[in-house]
Amino acid sequence: MQFDTVIHGGTIATADHTAKADVGIKDGRIAAVAENLAGGDHRIDAGGRIVMPGGIEAHAHIAQESSSGVMSADDYLSGSISAAFGGNSSFIPFAAQHRGQSIDEVIATYDARGARSVIDYSYHLIVSDPTPEVLEDQLPRAFARGITSFKVFMTYDLMNLGDGGMLDILTVAREHGAITMVHAENNDMVKWMNKRLADKGLTAPKYHAISRPELAEQEAINRAIQLAKLVDAPLFIVHVSTEGGAEIVRREKFNGAKLYAETCPQYLALTRDDLDRPGMEGAKYICSPPLRDAATQDALWHHVRMGTFESVSSDHAPYRFDETGKFLNGSDVAYPKIANGMPGIAARLPYLFSEGVVRGRITLEQFVALSSTNAAKTFGCDTKGRIAPGMDADIAIWDPEARTTVTAADQHDNMDYSPFEGMEITGKPEIVMNRGAVIVEHGELKAKEGQGRFIARQPADLRGKPGYTAKEFDPAQNFGTELC
Amino acid sequence: MQFDTVIHGGTIATADHTAKADVGIKDGRIAAVAENLAGGDHRIDAGGRIVMPGGIEAHAHIAQESSSGVMSADDYLSGSISAAFGGNSSFIPFAAQHRGQSIDEVIATYDARGARSVIDYSYHLIVSDPTPEVLEDQLPRAFARGITSFKVFMTYDLMNLGDGGMLDILTVAREHGAITMVHAENNDMVKWMNKRLADKGLTAPKYHAISRPELAEQEAINRAIQLAKLVDAPLFIVHVSTEGGAEIVRREKFNGAKLYAETCPQYLALTRDDLDRPGMEGAKYICSPPLRDAATQDALWHHVRMGTFESVSSDHAPYRFDETGKFLNGSDVAYPKIANGMPGIAARLPYLFSEGVVRGRITLEQFVALSSTNAAKTFGCDTKGRIAPGMDADIAIWDPEARTTVTAADQHDNMDYSPFEGMEITGKPEIVMNRGAVIVEHGELKAKEGQGRFIARQPADLRGKPGYTAKEFDPAQNFGTELC
Amino acid sequence: MQFDTVIHGGTIATADHTAKADVGIKDGRIAAVAENLAGGDHRIDAGGRIVMPGGIEAHAHIAQESSSGVMSADDYLSGSISAAFGGNSSFIPFAAQHRGQSIDEVIATYDARGARSVIDYSYHLIVSDPTPEVLEDQLPRAFARGITSFKVFMTYDLMNLGDGGMLDILTVAREHGAITMVHAENNDMVKWMNKRLADKGLTAPKYHAISRPELAEQEAINRAIQLAKLVDAPLFIVHVSTEGGAEIVRREKFNGAKLYAETCPQYLALTRDDLDRPGMEGAKYICSPPLRDAATQDALWHHVRMGTFESVSSDHAPYRFDETGKFLNGSDVAYPKIANGMPGIAARLPYLFSEGVVRGRITLEQFVALSSTNAAKTFGCDTKGRIAPGMDADIAIWDPEARTTVTAADQHDNMDYSPFEGMEITGKPEIVMNRGAVIVEHGELKAKEGQGRFIARQPADLRGKPGYTAKEFDPAQNFGTELC
Amino acid sequence: MQFDTVIHGGTIATADHTAKADVGIKDGRIAAVAENLAGGDHRIDAGGRIVMPGGIEAHAHIAQESSSGVMSADDYLSGSISAAFGGNSSFIPFAAQHRGQSIDEVIATYDARGARSVIDYSYHLIVSDPTPEVLEDQLPRAFARGITSFKVFMTYDLMNLGDGGMLDILTVAREHGAITMVHAENNDMVKWMNKRLADKGLTAPKYHAISRPELAEQEAINRAIQLAKLVDAPLFIVHVSTEGGAEIVRREKFNGAKLYAETCPQYLALTRDDLDRPGMEGAKYICSPPLRDAATQDALWHHVRMGTFESVSSDHAPYRFDETGKFLNGSDVAYPKIANGMPGIAARLPYLFSEGVVRGRITLEQFVALSSTNAAKTFGCDTKGRIAPGMDADIAIWDPEARTTVTAADQHDNMDYSPFEGMEITGKPEIVMNRGAVIVEHGELKAKEGQGRFIARQPADLRGKPGYTAKEFDPAQNFGTELC
Repeated sequence: MQFDTVIHGGTIATADHTAKADVGIKDGRIAAVAENLAGGDHRIDAGGRIVMPGGIEAHAHIAQESSSGVMSADDYLSGSISAAFGGNSSFIPFAAQHRGQSIDEVIATYDARGARSVIDYSYHLIVSDPTPEVLEDQLPRAFARGITSFKVFMTYDLMNLGDGGMLDILTVAREHGAITMVHAENNDMVKWMNKRLADKGLTAPKYHAISRPELAEQEAINRAIQLAKLVDAPLFIVHVSTEGGAEIVRREKFNGAKLYAETCPQYLALTRDDLDRPGMEGAKYICSPPLRDAATQDALWHHVRMGTFESVSSDHAPYRFDETGKFLNGSDVAYPKIANGMPGIAARLPYLFSEGVVRGRITLEQFVALSSTNAAKTFGCDTKGRIAPGMDADIAIWDPEARTTVTAADQHDNMDYSPFEGMEITGKPEIVMNRGAVIVEHGELKAKEGQGRFIARQPADLRGKPGYTAKEFDPAQNFGTELC
Repeated sequence: MQFDTVIHGGTIATADHTAKADVGIKDGRIAAVAENLAGGDHRIDAGGRIVMPGGIEAHAHIAQESSSGVMSADDYLSGSISAAFGGNSSFIPFAAQHRGQSIDEVIATYDARGARSVIDYSYHLIVSDPTPEVLEDQLPRAFARGITSFKVFMTYDLMNLGDGGMLDILTVAREHGAITMVHAENNDMVKWMNKRLADKGLTAPKYHAISRPELAEQEAINRAIQLAKLVDAPLFIVHVSTEGGAEIVRREKFNGAKLYAETCPQYLALTRDDLDRPGMEGAKYICSPPLRDAATQDALWHHVRMGTFESVSSDHAPYRFDETGKFLNGSDVAYPKIANGMPGIAARLPYLFSEGVVRGRITLEQFVALSSTNAAKTFGCDTKGRIAPGMDADIAIWDPEARTTVTAADQHDNMDYSPFEGMEITGKPEIVMNRGAVIVEHGELKAKEGQGRFIARQPADLRGKPGYTAKEFDPAQNFGTELC
Repeated sequence: MQFDTVIHGGTIATADHTAKADVGIKDGRIAAVAENLAGGDHRIDAGGRIVMPGGIEAHAHIAQESSSGVMSADDYLSGSISAAFGGNSSFIPFAAQHRGQSIDEVIATYDARGARSVIDYSYHLIVSDPTPEVLEDQLPRAFARGITSFKVFMTYDLMNLGDGGMLDILTVAREHGAITMVHAENNDMVKWMNKRLADKGLTAPKYHAISRPELAEQEAINRAIQLAKLVDAPLFIVHVSTEGGAEIVRREKFNGAKLYAETCPQYLALTRDDLDRPGMEGAKYICSPPLRDAATQDALWHHVRMGTFESVSSDHAPYRFDETGKFLNGSDVAYPKIANGMPGIAARLPYLFSEGVVRGRITLEQFVALSSTNAAKTFGCDTKGRIAPGMDADIAIWDPEARTTVTAADQHDNMDYSPFEGMEITGKPEIVMNRGAVIVEHGELKAKEGQGRFIARQPADLRGKPGYTAKEFDPAQNFGTELC
Repeated sequence: MQFDTVIHGGTIATADHTAKADVGIKDGRIAAVAENLAGGDHRIDAGGRIVMPGGIEAHAHIAQESSSGVMSADDYLSGSISAAFGGNSSFIPFAAQHRGQSIDEVIATYDARGARSVIDYSYHLIVSDPTPEVLEDQLPRAFARGITSFKVFMTYDLMNLGDGGMLDILTVAREHGAITMVHAENNDMVKWMNKRLADKGLTAPKYHAISRPELAEQEAINRAIQLAKLVDAPLFIVHVSTEGGAEIVRREKFNGAKLYAETCPQYLALTRDDLDRPGMEGAKYICSPPLRDAATQDALWHHVRMGTFESVSSDHAPYRFDETGKFLNGSDVAYPKIANGMPGIAARLPYLFSEGVVRGRITLEQFVALSSTNAAKTFGCDTKGRIAPGMDADIAIWDPEARTTVTAADQHDNMDYSPFEGMEITGKPEIVMNRGAVIVEHGELKAKEGQGRFIARQPADLRGKPGYTAKEFDPAQNFGTELC
C-alpha cells in the first residue's frame, strides 16, 4: 500500500499496550500499524519517542459567554492552537444555551465560531432551558446531527434545572443514547454560604473556597446519580474535586450505575491556599468547584490510578487577570463577582505525564486512556483516541524526557497567566497531527485557521456498560425498586 | 417514707437492666425503687409481670388538618385514650403550621386541642413557612416554652422548604439546642413519577408505592444529613422505610453526624402487596413513605436490632376508610387524592414486643429503649422514660404472655379499620399509669378527659453525642472542610 | 426498712442515666434507690459527687507466671489494693494453664492466691493445652463452678492453639454458654519479623513495635472472628490496638457475629515513640500488641465513643523495671527477651474519666458502661455493675473535679514505674465500696486482706445478642452458608 | 512486505477495541495490522468473524500427579489438543513439586512431558517444600529460566506451607519479580469440618460442599493478602468461588495491594445442588473450593463484569468418572477419598462468550481480556495475548453466532464426562493459530504432536501497579505501618 506518511522508529502507546511499530497513514487515516513499514511520501522519524493518540480535550470553554456575561479569552482559533501545543488533536468545548434560545440557534452560533479551529472539534451542549420544544424536538435533532452529549448544572441560579428538570432531560438522553454531563454542586448550600459570608463581610478570594464546601459537591454528586438511577440513564460527573465525591462515584459504579467521571489537573496540583495569595492574586485560582487541600490531592490521585475516573480534563475556562476577565466587575470586588475559571488546555497532558507517569503514579497506558482514549469512547468519537487501522491519524509524538518549566507564554493561548506557572515538567509533545496533517512540530504551529473539522459523534458508547440500550422509560416497570 | 402507691412483686425493666424490685410512688413521681417496699395507700400487685416505663409515642398526627385539608379522625381525647390502651403514658403529636400562620397561633390552637388529653403530651411543631419572624422570634419563643423539636418536609409542594430553607431552620435549631425532624423524600422525584404514571392512566392504589420510589427516600435522607452536617446541627430522620436509608443513617452516625432516626411498625409488618388488595382496599395501606417489600422488612429489623434507630414510632395518621378520611375526594379517585396515612398508636408496643422480644429479634431492654426511653432522651422529656427516683410515675405493667388478636375495635381510637387487623400478638399492657394515676386497668379506661398535662421539654438531649453545645454558626470556621 | 448504710446527696450515674438519689444498703446489697432516704446505721454524705458502680477490671495479670517464666509483681493483695485505689470494686484476673496442667489444678492454685484479695474476684482461665480431658470434662466443670470465660492465644509458640484448636474450644464454649477471649496476633508474622530483625541486629526496644505489625493484629482478629462464625460461638477480642482491628470488629458485629471487644488506656494514651526513649527506658513500654501512633489513638477514641468496644480494660501486667521483671534475662538483652506488659490497674478509671468525660469524648453514662456495667454483662457478674436494688453494694463515689498528677507511688501497686507518670488527671474516686464495706476512703485503705470473695459467674450474657442459646454444633446444618 | 499469511475481512477484537482490519503474519509473528492487506502466501478469509488473540489458559492440571497420587487423565498432548479446540493458543499448566523434590528435578520432569504439546506452554511451579535450597537457589534459577510464577497452598496437609512459609516464599518472589499464586482455603477449618461430618457418618458427595465452607475461603483469601501486604509482594488468588472472597479482593485492590484474581466457569455455571445428584453422580462435581449457590453465581458475574478478576480460568483437573480418576480409592468411598477436580479447558472460552458476551453481561473487549490478554500481562507472556505487530501470531477466529450443545466428546480431551454436558452455547472458535500455524480449523486438528514451544516468561508484569519494582525486604522500613 502507498502511504502518505509513515511514522517509523517509535514506540506506540495505546490504552492497553506499548510496542515498537510503525504507523502508515493514508488519506488522513491510519491504514497500517506494522513493523518496518517502507514507503510513505513523508517519513517521520519518531526516534524512539512515544507515538500515542493525540489528546482529546473533553472539557473546555471556548468562545463561550458565561451566564454572568464574560466572554472567554480564547476563541476557537487561539483555543485550538493552545490545545494543539498541549498535545491534543481534537477537543469538545461547550455550546451553551442561554435561557430563551433554541438549541438550533445555539448550534448555528457555535458552528460559526468553531469554523476557525485548527483541530477537529465537536460540542457538548449546555442546556439551561429545557422547554418541551427543546426536549422533544431540538435535542433529538442535535443528537441526530452528532452532538450526543450535553451538560446541565445543579448550581447557579440561571443554569440550575432542579431535580424535576434533571429527570426530564435524563429521560430524553436515555431514550436517544445521549449522555448527560453534570456540574454537581448544591446550589442552595452555596447561596446560603455566600449570604452568611457576605453578612460578615468576608469577601476576599479565599472565601470562595469556603462558600462552596466539599459537602455541596458530595451531596450534589450523590443526588445526580440517584436521579440518573431512577430513569436508568447514563451520567458523567464533571470535575470531581473531593475525595467524598470520588468515593460516591466508585461505589455507585460498582452498584451498577451507568456512571462516568473526570477530575482536572488543578485539583491534583493546587490547593485553596493558592486562593489566599497576596492582594487579589487569589482571583487567578477561583474556579468552581473550588480548589481543596493536600490530602484531597492524594486521594484524587489514588482514584485516578484506581480507575474511578475515565478522564483527566482541563476545564479550560480562560478569563484574563484583568478587566476583560476576572475583573469585569472591578478589581476590588467580592469573590462572587470575580469571573470563575482558569486556563489549562495546553498544560493538561504535560502535567499528567510528568506527575503521573514519570512519578510512577500511573502507567503510560493509563496516561493514554485518561488523556485520549476514554474520552473518545465515552463521547462517541469512534474514529479518535486510538492508534489502529481505520482510526483518524490523530497522533502525538511524545518526548518522555524533555524537561520544561511552565510559563504563561508557552501555553499559546490568549491568557496573561497560567495557574501552573513555574512548575517543572518532564515530557512534552514534539509533533502533533490531526487527520494526518502535522499541526505542531517542535514548537511551531503548522496548521492553518479553520483546518479542523466538526466531529459528528455516535451515541454515548455504553459498550463498557453491557446490556444498555437506548430505550423509553416505563414508570410501571419501576415498582418501588432500585433500577440497577 | 409514705408512698401514695406501691407496685410490688414485679420485674422492673429499663433500657439497661431488668431486676425484681418494687416501686414507691409519691405525688405522681417515683420516689423509690427498692426491695420489699412496705406501705403505700394503694398497693398494686404486679404479680410477676414486667414493670416498665410507659410508652412515649413520638410520632402521631392528632387533631391535625393535613395540608390537603383532611382532619385526622382522632382528637386529643380519642387519640390519647388509644395511646393509653396501647401502653403509652405520654405522646408528642404534631402542631402544624399552615403557610401564613404564626407559630404562636399554632401553639394556641393546639393548646386548646391538647387540653382534652388523658395522658401527658407535648408537640413537635411542623414548620412550613419559616419567615424571618418565625425563625428569629417565634421559634425561639416556642423553644423557651418547652417545644424543643419541630418537623420539616422535603416533599409535598405546600410543605417542602427547599434546601436553603432547611439550612436556615437547622441553623436556628442548632443555636437553641432544638432538634429538627425531617420527612425525607425527594419531592421532584415523586411529582415526576406521579406525572408519568398519570400520563399512562396508572392511578390505582398500588401505584402509590411506585410513585414514591426507594431512591426518593434514600436521596432525601442523604441530602438532609449533608445539610445538617454543613451547619453541624442535630437531625432526626422520621419513618425510615428503606434498607438504603437505614444504611446511610448508620454510616453517617459513625462518621459523626448528630443523627437520630426511627422506623415504624408498618414498615416491619406490611408490604406494598397490601396496596394491591381488591377494589379500593389498598387505600387503607396508603402512607408516605410507602410500604416496601419483605426483604426490606428483614433489613429494617436487623437495623432495629443493631441500634440504627432510636425509636420505633407509630406515625399514627388516622383517616377513616370513608368519605371523612381516605375518600374525602371521592371513593374512586386516583391514588394521589386518597388521604395519606394509617392508624397504629395502640398497636405499636404490642407489635414491637410480640414480633421483637417474643420472636427473639430484640431484647426486653431494647424494647423499653425503643418504645420509651430513647424518645424521652432524644426529645428532652427529662422526667419521662425511666423507672428511677425523681422520674414521673409513668408506668406500664406488662403481661408478657397474654395472647390477643388485633381488631379495629380494640384499638380504642376513632378509626373503622386497623392495618394490623387479625395479627396474633403475644404480650399486652395490663395497667398503664400517668404521673402515678392509673389510666387504663385490665382493659378499662380509668382516666378523665383532660387529665394529661403539657410536657415542657428540655433542649434536645445531646448527651449521647458528647461535645455538642448549642452555638452560633460561624461561616469562617468552615474552610472547605467537613464539619464533623 | 432499716439500712446498714445510706449514701445521700449524690448523683447516681448508671450506664443509662444520671439522677439525684440516695442509696440504701442492707447486708452488702443495694436495697433501695430513692429520694430522701432516712435512716442508716452509717450515713455517707456524697456531697454532690457521682455515685457510680465500682469499676470491674476485666483484664489483669495478677500472681501469674508468664509463659516465659516471669512472675507478675502484684499478687492478689497488692493487685486488689491497687485496683481499689483506682475505683474498682471487683476484678477478673487470669488463671493460666501451663501445658500439661489440668484445669482443676489451675483453679486450685489460683483459689489459694485469690484468697488474699481485698475486692471480689473471679478468673478468666487461660487455656494453652486443650486436651480431650480439658475440653470434655475440666472446662465444663470450671464453667459449672462459675468460671465462664477463658482466654486463648493466637500468638506465642507455647500458647497458640492453632485454628483447629480454636474451633474445638469455641465449640465447647458455645455448647456451655461460655465466652472465649482471644489475644489476636498472627504468630507466624511476628516470628518471621523477629527473625528478619535479628538477622540485621535490630534488637533495641523500639523494634518490638516493628516486630508486631498492625497487619498481624488485623489478620488475627479477622481470623478469630471467622472461626467463631463457623461454629456460631461468642468471642471477645482483647486489647484491640489498631484502627483496622476496630473496624473489623465493628463490621462483623453489624453482620451479626456474637462479638465483644475492648481496648486499653495505653493504646489511647501512648505511642510507639515511647519505645524509643533513651537507653533501655523503652522497655517500660513493651507490651503486646505494641503501642501504635497518634492517628491510631484518634481512631480508637472514635471507636470507643461509637460503641465498638464494650470495655476499656487495663491489661495490667506488672513487671518491674529491674531484674525481677523487665530484665529477668538481663538489662541489655534483645527486645524479645524483655518481659512484656505494663501496669495500669489503678490508672484506668481516672484516665478514662479525665480524657474521656472531661474532654467531652464520651458521656458519663458511657464511662460507667465502659468501666463497669458492660464487663458485668459480658462476663456474667449478674450482681455487679449497676446501682439498682438487688445488686451488690459495689460503689465508687467519684469526685469529678479533683485534679491530680500520676505518680508511680500513687498507684499503690508493687511497681517501680507507671507508664502514665506525670499525666494530669481530672476526677478521682473518693470512696470505694465492696459489698457495702468501705475499702478505700479519701486515699486510705480500709479493707483487710482476704476480704474479697470469689464471684461465681453466670454463662456469658448474650441478652444483647438476641436469639442465642447454648447449643450443640451440627455440621449438617452448615450447608455451605454463613452462619450468621 | 511479504507475509506468510494474511487474515482478511475480519473484525479484530482486543482487550480495548474492536475494528475491521486485516492481519499480516510473517515468521510466526504478527507483522502488520492494516486495512486491505494484499499479498500473503496463505490468505484466510475471516468472513466477518471475530479475529482475537488466542486464549491463554492460565490454570490447568496436565500430566500432573495430585498430592493424593492420582494422575490427571490429560497429558500435554491431549490437554493441549483440548485447549486448542477450545480456542486457546497457549497454556500454563502446573509443574508440581512433591516434598523432597528439587525444583530442577520438577522442571526436568515437566519439560519431558510438555514436549508433546501442540500449543505453546509454560508452567507455574507448585511449591510444597520451600527448603532453603529451594528458596535461595532453585527458585531464582527457575525464574531466570522464565518460569516466573508459582502456586502455593493454604490447604491440604501435604501442601500447605503455613503462614511463615508463605512469608518466606512471598519475599523471594518479591525480590525476583515473580508472582505467587495461592489456593486459599483454611486448612484447619476444612479438616475440622471433615472430622465432624465423619463423626456423624455424613460422607456422601454433597457433604464435600459442607466440609469446605465459604468462610474457609474468605478467611484464607484475607490472610493471604495480609501476608503479601506485610512484605509488599504481588499475589494472585486462584479460583475465587465466593462473593465474600471477591469482595475482599476488590477492597484490597483499592487499598493498594498488588493483587490479582481469577474465578472459573464452574462457579458461574454450576451449584452445589449438582453434588447431590443421584448415586455417586455428584462425584463429578467435586472440586475445591466447592461449588456454591445461585446467589453466588450472580455475585461472581457482577464481579467479573466490574473488573474484580483479571481472568476466568478453567482449573481443568481431569479425573475420569472411573477407577483411574474419581474412584481411585473405590466407587463407594467417603467424599474426601474422591479425586478432586473437573475438566473444562475446551469449554472455557465458549462458555464465557455465550453466557458473558451474548447474554450482555460483559463486552467483547472484556471477553478478550479475561480469556487471553490479562493472563499474558499478569504472567509475563510478553509476546502473547494481543493482536499487534511484534506479537506472536496466536489467533482465534471466532464465529459469534454458531450454536452448539456441549458434549463430552466435543471436548477432545481424555475425559468421559463434561460438567457442562448439555449446555447450549452460542459462539465458537472456527480457526485457531499458534505462532502463525493453523492448529485447529473447522473442527479438525491440524497440529502435530510437539509443535508447541516453551514460553520463557518475563517477571510478573506489574505495570498495572505503578511504582513496583523487584526489591529486597527491609524489616526496618516497616515501622508498625501498613505497607501499601
